[in-house]
Amino acid sequence: MSATIEITRIEKSKIASVDFNNLPFGSVFSDHMLTCTYKNGKWESPVIVPYAPIALDPSAKIFHYGQSIFEGMKAYKDAKGNTLLFRPLENCKRLNKSAERLVIPQIPEDVFMQGLKELLKVDDAWIPTNEGSSLYIRPFMFASGNGFHASPADEYKLMICTAPSGAYFAGKVNVLIEEKYARAANGGVGFAKAGGNYAAQFYPTQLAIEKGYNQVIWTDDNTHEYIEEAGAMNIFVRINDTLLTSPTNDRILDGITRKSILQLAEDLDIAVEVRKISVAEVVIAAQSGTLKEMFGTGTAAVISPITGFGFQEKDYELPTLEMPFASILKKAITDIQTNKSEDLHGWRVQL
Amino acid sequence: MSATIEITRIEKSKIASVDFNNLPFGSVFSDHMLTCTYKNGKWESPVIVPYAPIALDPSAKIFHYGQSIFEGMKAYKDAKGNTLLFRPLENCKRLNKSAERLVIPQIPEDVFMQGLKELLKVDDAWIPTNEGSSLYIRPFMFASGNGFHASPADEYKLMICTAPSGAYFAGKVNVLIEEKYARAANGGVGFAKAGGNYAAQFYPTQLAIEKGYNQVIWTDDNTHEYIEEAGAMNIFVRINDTLLTSPTNDRILDGITRKSILQLAEDLDIAVEVRKISVAEVVIAAQSGTLKEMFGTGTAAVISPITGFGFQEKDYELPTLEMPFASILKKAITDIQTNKSEDLHGWRVQL
Repeated sequence: MSATIEITRIEKSKIASVDFNNLPFGSVFSDHMLTCTYKNGKWESPVIVPYAPIALDPSAKIFHYGQSIFEGMKAYKDAKGNTLLFRPLENCKRLNKSAERLVIPQIPEDVFMQGLKELLKVDDAWIPTNEGSSLYIRPFMFASGNGFHASPADEYKLMICTAPSGAYFAGKVNVLIEEKYARAANGGVGFAKAGGNYAAQFYPTQLAIEKGYNQVIWTDDNTHEYIEEAGAMNIFVRINDTLLTSPTNDRILDGITRKSILQLAEDLDIAVEVRKISVAEVVIAAQSGTLKEMFGTGTAAVISPITGFGFQEKDYELPTLEMPFASILKKAITDIQTNKSEDLHGWRVQL
Repeated sequence: MSATIEITRIEKSKIASVDFNNLPFGSVFSDHMLTCTYKNGKWESPVIVPYAPIALDPSAKIFHYGQSIFEGMKAYKDAKGNTLLFRPLENCKRLNKSAERLVIPQIPEDVFMQGLKELLKVDDAWIPTNEGSSLYIRPFMFASGNGFHASPADEYKLMICTAPSGAYFAGKVNVLIEEKYARAANGGVGFAKAGGNYAAQFYPTQLAIEKGYNQVIWTDDNTHEYIEEAGAMNIFVRINDTLLTSPTNDRILDGITRKSILQLAEDLDIAVEVRKISVAEVVIAAQSGTLKEMFGTGTAAVISPITGFGFQEKDYELPTLEMPFASILKKAITDIQTNKSEDLHGWRVQL
């Protein structure tokens, strides 16, 4: 199926007002956006229109029943000016997995991919060319149908907006291992990129920030004995020369950066174990000096090294290594993303 | 603090087009709505304006990070035409509890109460007078501030909309005791009326509906051995002549109908136990004939009797009683709500 995408261009671009050398994350928006409406049991043709407010009835279910999901992606320019995406179909597949769990109708992959590519062509000038910057892409879906009855809506929107962005995180990242709050239930929606999962994290994160930390390390909601995620990222722990990460389950997001890092670690002959990681072993490793690294992985930050952690009123600092796995793996993945190295796994998609 | 509420009245009321004898639940909306904006660190004065769509930036955090909470309330007309509310301050207090957990700024109680009363005066003609009908009131708060950064927003809205409504549920309510999915985590947001909690329920509920049930009985996410909630309601189980309900915790909503029913049961000398209810004891009671009733409680349905339940591929039917507790208690609470009986506990608030 090839959809006809109607394009309405902006009258006057805002791009001249944007300082591309000083871009905050996700708060400057490109000229256009894509909208696709699900109505009367089917997806209508997507449209590309100037970035502008959305009008919704106050009874739209997004305001009441949390049917909202999203994805995070990035577009890069290589040295020749080509536009590159990284494993975009994986984002579409995950969006549809989230959609299924939240009872939002799934978007056909070809409609998604065609719409995304068309939008990037229209806003080509918005894709940053400076090192480390990229065009952050935010596809999202939500219930636009109306009514106060607590049931799935009858209308939905898929939208894609983009924001030229610099790096997501900077400076020290000191994390607190959570012992009381949890982000996801067994049999819940933790594996989905559902809006509600993020709102649930804000309060415990705020408490951690008040204690002097930057983020929370989430543990399982039942025993709090196992490490699951880092803030809104997947987590990796390096003990001696082995990299550990939790297996995904219905509480943990199946991160695209996570699985790419696992593959790249294998390519680089870094020992990896995908298994449950207990808080106890991380603390013991920190005490004995075998804990070498911890880092989060996700689209926005790519890899975000953790500099220390707190647990039961004690703080543990991580060593500063000359050549940490985090740096090696971050270079490996961003080199592929930006067309500086060979793409052995066919992850790069050129527009 | 007494806020000045600016009122902009609708040019032409829609009320003539509404059939008050045939009202669906929560899908016909009154002429006006209240909006209050939180901006630059403080709540602005509320305004009452004609019910109309809301315009939001596509990056508004409600679309991405699920910062949304709501309440459900009802206004009634008594025989003399007085407007009555039922324990409205409890809703305001719970809204603020939900707000705290979702990092949404709390609304001062007097602003909430004054705004609510003013709105009900403006739309007085919309409060149904026919038996069983009421004006359903939906206060809700959401993140209207912008940006793709996964952090609390810097702007919020409190809105109150109303919808004249008939009864919520009708007919047989056959429920499935859930063994795989869960609506809330330990240390999560299950106790809050957060939008994300409802979206999380839709998929398991849909699976139950496909199997021929109407609703899901939620069990704890860890063992699935204990009964926690019924759909979007609190649950009561009657074994012999004792009424049981689960204690509230961070997974279970502190229902206002639930606690009113507990008080009324005590007033009526009905034996009540607030304690964990195991699925096993409910099944055994059903098998031995000591399970007399199950019902859900909530603002929308007040009391919704359950006619049968399914568990592990077996179905159990509940007996049809001549004078079930559900009917006795429903009459007791609605008589107070509609000013047909004495209000011993000071629950009724007359406008």
